[in-house]
Amino acid sequence: MKKVGIVMGSDSDLPIIRKATDMLAALDIPYEVHVYSAHRTPDQARDFTRAARANGFGVIIAAAGMAAHLAGAVAANTTLPVIGIPCHSQAFGGMDALLATVQMPTGIPVATVAVNGGANAALLAAQILAVEDAALAKKLDDKRAADAAAVLEKDAGIAARLNEK
Amino acid sequence: MKKVGIVMGSDSDLPIIRKATDMLAALDIPYEVHVYSAHRTPDQARDFTRAARANGFGVIIAAAGMAAHLAGAVAANTTLPVIGIPCHSQAFGGMDALLATVQMPTGIPVATVAVNGGANAALLAAQILAVEDAALAKKLDDKRAADAAAVLEKDAGIAARLNEK
Amino acid sequence: MKKVGIVMGSDSDLPIIRKATDMLAALDIPYEVHVYSAHRTPDQARDFTRAARANGFGVIIAAAGMAAHLAGAVAANTTLPVIGIPCHSQAFGGMDALLATVQMPTGIPVATVAVNGGANAALLAAQILAVEDAALAKKLDDKRAADAAAVLEKDAGIAARLNEK
Amino acid sequence: MKKVGIVMGSDSDLPIIRKATDMLAALDIPYEVHVYSAHRTPDQARDFTRAARANGFGVIIAAAGMAAHLAGAVAANTTLPVIGIPCHSQAFGGMDALLATVQMPTGIPVATVAVNGGANAALLAAQILAVEDAALAKKLDDKRAADAAAVLEKDAGIAARLNEK
Amino acid sequence: MKKVGIVMGSDSDLPIIRKATDMLAALDIPYEVHVYSAHRTPDQARDFTRAARANGFGVIIAAAGMAAHLAGAVAANTTLPVIGIPCHSQAFGGMDALLATVQMPTGIPVATVAVNGGANAALLAAQILAVEDAALAKKLDDKRAADAAAVLEKDAGIAARLNEK
Amino acid sequence: MKKVGIVMGSDSDLPIIRKATDMLAALDIPYEVHVYSAHRTPDQARDFTRAARANGFGVIIAAAGMAAHLAGAVAANTTLPVIGIPCHSQAFGGMDALLATVQMPTGIPVATVAVNGGANAALLAAQILAVEDAALAKKLDDKRAADAAAVLEKDAGIAARLNEK
Amino acid sequence: MKKVGIVMGSDSDLPIIRKATDMLAALDIPYEVHVYSAHRTPDQARDFTRAARANGFGVIIAAAGMAAHLAGAVAANTTLPVIGIPCHSQAFGGMDALLATVQMPTGIPVATVAVNGGANAALLAAQILAVEDAALAKKLDDKRAADAAAVLEKDAGIAARLNEK
Amino acid sequence: MKKVGIVMGSDSDLPIIRKATDMLAALDIPYEVHVYSAHRTPDQARDFTRAARANGFGVIIAAAGMAAHLAGAVAANTTLPVIGIPCHSQAFGGMDALLATVQMPTGIPVATVAVNGGANAALLAAQILAVEDAALAKKLDDKRAADAAAVLEKDAGIAARLNEK
Repeated sequence: MKKVGIVMGSDSDLPIIRKATDMLAALDIPYEVHVYSAHRTPDQARDFTRAARANGFGVIIAAAGMAAHLAGAVAANTTLPVIGIPCHSQAFGGMDALLATVQMPTGIPVATVAVNGGANAALLAAQILAVEDAALAKKLDDKRAADAAAVLEKDAGIAARLNEK
Repeated sequence: MKKVGIVMGSDSDLPIIRKATDMLAALDIPYEVHVYSAHRTPDQARDFTRAARANGFGVIIAAAGMAAHLAGAVAANTTLPVIGIPCHSQAFGGMDALLATVQMPTGIPVATVAVNGGANAALLAAQILAVEDAALAKKLDDKRAADAAAVLEKDAGIAARLNEK
Repeated sequence: MKKVGIVMGSDSDLPIIRKATDMLAALDIPYEVHVYSAHRTPDQARDFTRAARANGFGVIIAAAGMAAHLAGAVAANTTLPVIGIPCHSQAFGGMDALLATVQMPTGIPVATVAVNGGANAALLAAQILAVEDAALAKKLDDKRAADAAAVLEKDAGIAARLNEK
Repeated sequence: MKKVGIVMGSDSDLPIIRKATDMLAALDIPYEVHVYSAHRTPDQARDFTRAARANGFGVIIAAAGMAAHLAGAVAANTTLPVIGIPCHSQAFGGMDALLATVQMPTGIPVATVAVNGGANAALLAAQILAVEDAALAKKLDDKRAADAAAVLEKDAGIAARLNEK
Repeated sequence: MKKVGIVMGSDSDLPIIRKATDMLAALDIPYEVHVYSAHRTPDQARDFTRAARANGFGVIIAAAGMAAHLAGAVAANTTLPVIGIPCHSQAFGGMDALLATVQMPTGIPVATVAVNGGANAALLAAQILAVEDAALAKKLDDKRAADAAAVLEKDAGIAARLNEK
Repeated sequence: MKKVGIVMGSDSDLPIIRKATDMLAALDIPYEVHVYSAHRTPDQARDFTRAARANGFGVIIAAAGMAAHLAGAVAANTTLPVIGIPCHSQAFGGMDALLATVQMPTGIPVATVAVNGGANAALLAAQILAVEDAALAKKLDDKRAADAAAVLEKDAGIAARLNEK
Repeated sequence: MKKVGIVMGSDSDLPIIRKATDMLAALDIPYEVHVYSAHRTPDQARDFTRAARANGFGVIIAAAGMAAHLAGAVAANTTLPVIGIPCHSQAFGGMDALLATVQMPTGIPVATVAVNGGANAALLAAQILAVEDAALAKKLDDKRAADAAAVLEKDAGIAARLNEK
Repeated sequence: MKKVGIVMGSDSDLPIIRKATDMLAALDIPYEVHVYSAHRTPDQARDFTRAARANGFGVIIAAAGMAAHLAGAVAANTTLPVIGIPCHSQAFGGMDALLATVQMPTGIPVATVAVNGGANAALLAAQILAVEDAALAKKLDDKRAADAAAVLEKDAGIAARLNEK
């Protein structure tokens, strides 16, 4: 199976990335994680990205905050699908990272997920890999069913919890 | 090759969708376009989506404005990758559609592109299909090179244009 | 009397819902609470909603955060009045949920209340049921008078509190 | 049938109100329209509102822009359901009116619809009146079906329109 | 000397009001504080305001949060200058209250100060009363000089504090 | 009677200022208008302001756009009441000017009116001058009554206009 | 004298760049203009930037819109001062470009000017070059004086223009 | 070497300034720090600034929050490059200070860095001084290399940290 490359702009984003790697691990999808800054280590970010398809990667996830250029910088160097996670920061609650990640110019898309959306980035990567992988698609469908069952279980218990005050 | 399904919430979004279909056509990727509203025709949107994988679709693009639920409603009914295009509207410049498209809860990702980003939605769909399709990946790389060449041609002529006033 | 249906997208919204159920209980209005996600359990949300009028519901309240599609998804499946509560979340203080709840397209209104406005959602539901129920209208008028009296009591004591520092 | 009261803060909001009155007329719902400013004619706004229930009104719709206090001022004087339409204005695209309409304090809800949402305000009023009026509920269901059919008709023709360029 | 009337929409705004009353007390300006809600006690707010000029008030300060209608509701009932304090609240950091206070329609101005700006509201009231009161103007000039001196004293000590780490 | 000083940061703000001067002229209040930039002519802005009280001014109105420092710069040099008009500009609809005008630090209040609120700035100035001027207060009350009458006249004609389509 | 390098992300930004080059030309400062996209031609943008100091550049100006990564991408490849111009675009009025330009991580500053601030970017570049160039500093001081004189000339004529209606 | 002047509007900004002075000290760049308020001590701010070039300063850094006029007020009084640091505050997360700092009118640029960006303001000042100082430029290049090495060291250890949970 193709691997998922994960790049974070700063190791302070590790808790968000862990949500992604936990999800990938649960789906038995191989991944590789790097700390590469679009601004402090542009060469390494570029070199990793340019070689990604040849090195067996199928999707790249990039997480960054503030003027979050990382996903775009990665996307500029590959035609693999690139998923961007805008990270929350104090001043603007992640609006800066969201706009800097999603508002990409024509030609270089970034598949943007919610602010701090590490788990969903991993799920989206899995969905992409599952387009041609029926076994993985089956796992995703099973996970959906399990998620639905969990909601319904909460629904079954909600009246009791309302009375617990 | 798998098809790209395109759903728009209103036919007023047609100009944005045309940028997507033009791009797909240029890349020889088959597609099918529908007008399905998440709110006015929820059953049709759901039925189309639930059958999409079985019907040969590999990716679904959904475009909607204002309280843009369409991409999320589609994503709730398939584990295929879903790309959301938030559409511009008068009141908030597309911020309503952007937040309603990108801020999805854990479990149901939507790959969001820029406001009115029809062409990039198509490119992202192509990138997803190209993960296991070397010929399409080659086309995408060629398009990138052509885009770069176009920028450099503009660069070559910019001094002259500055003097033209 | 017709019942109020209450749907929350996630049980993390329970504290907001409790403000609603406390208010309904105080007004002796029957209600039924469910946890149904627009995205994880779309079928259950739809089935509950489609049957709501026949099952004796008069109003439905839906609470959700982030890309808050729940109220709209409910509204798409009934012509009962639907009240939406946008829930606060970390990134954007509830602006995402507010816009995703209120900016509904023509044809499918959602009666939106303030961010986290559980009590007001219940009051609005009561006001709707009171249109044809003079006894309930009387209760609402009495509550208004009591609220006013509470403000005036605070007014009477404010000078003393200012001096307490 | 109970009437719908419609109050606009300025006659510049007439085009938005007309969308509401057209909808009410199509549903054979009686209505009465007034221009009352929360700030320039507070007494008339109050007197109209306080007498509204006794005068046969079942719902009040209030439309205003900028620091849109009208819906709240109306809601402060009745326990009838009050629907607020935030009107677009140049500086902030209606964000000022939206927040001033929806963010009501506990005790005085305003059922807020989308910016400039005149038609939806009328539909919501109709839904409220239909809670105890099966014939009106039937009309609303029929309108929903017609709206869905209109979308599906557009869907049927969309491929042709895409090719028309 | 004319009095300053101070109205707060909720006693939760007391800490902000205390900054105002402390300032007025320091300037020997008489004031009177009330808790009147624009929505829960509209009559009392109106009656107090309509009688304010006759009762010896020269300025009215009104503080409210969320859909902050209080200052506007006061301003609608007097031609005395009305100063509005938008109060901070969780969802939008006071942006809702700011817009609801400052964006008043032509004819009914509200002199708006910063979010939570209790002290400045009092100072502005003092400046208004000082237009025709040279002794009060002198006090304000003296306070300015003292404020400047306090800044310069901090300036004198800043190098030392920088070294203290 | 004391004069109203009006300062605009750029002569492009003239249409907004004219709404102010028209209002002042209608109320027979003397005024003097200047173009002084807080940044390009800081000395003249300061000198005018410092001498304002001695030169017979009772209030100063300052209008500016973008990073609108003018009202604050004026307020820093006088203890006269200063009214700030934030002017609309293309990028942010006046949000930049609003925040730069209203969010003043403790000690230096600016009485901020709505974006482009030239007429209300003049009315507020008149209200301030009227605190100790019963004749002017009478004019303001008369204007209020006339404004109310104009609204009621529109109310009387609104049903007819609705039918005119 | 060292040159100013100017890079624009798209030739649609030419009108903004022309304001910069006009200003530089008026100050006799040499400059060189390029169209380099951070995403479509990352190598050329990098190569130009890395060689800039050696090639006689003293400052680089970068202009881009939407997810404006260009200034940051340039800044990542040089320790020359980099000035960023966020360009206006339809959806968010330039807020996306502003946040993507100014919110740079520690270590890689971008000197950001106002949205569409081409002339000020050039002036800032000139101020930087003038730190060690007394003749250029003199030109900047003279320009300031001329700007002030222009304001005062407008001030002198403003009363007449007010009367012209 | 020319000095860096640092002005803060309030000593509450000291922690942000300390990040700047630490950076300057690490680069052996002389600096001088002052507390001058644009509004409370406008004369001292102006006098310091007007004399700055003659007194051996090459750059001025100004930090302020809320309606952050300080950087602009400094820039109005010198043609030295002025760097503005918008400081975070509770209500709007620094958006007020950012807009008030960056949206300067043509003629008076402020080089704006990120909210609370004290370290980057110092680095930008160093970059400006390094335009004509090869030794300082060398230091900046060395710091860049060290920053990159630090990122790569974190990259080397990230897999281990992911496993540590």
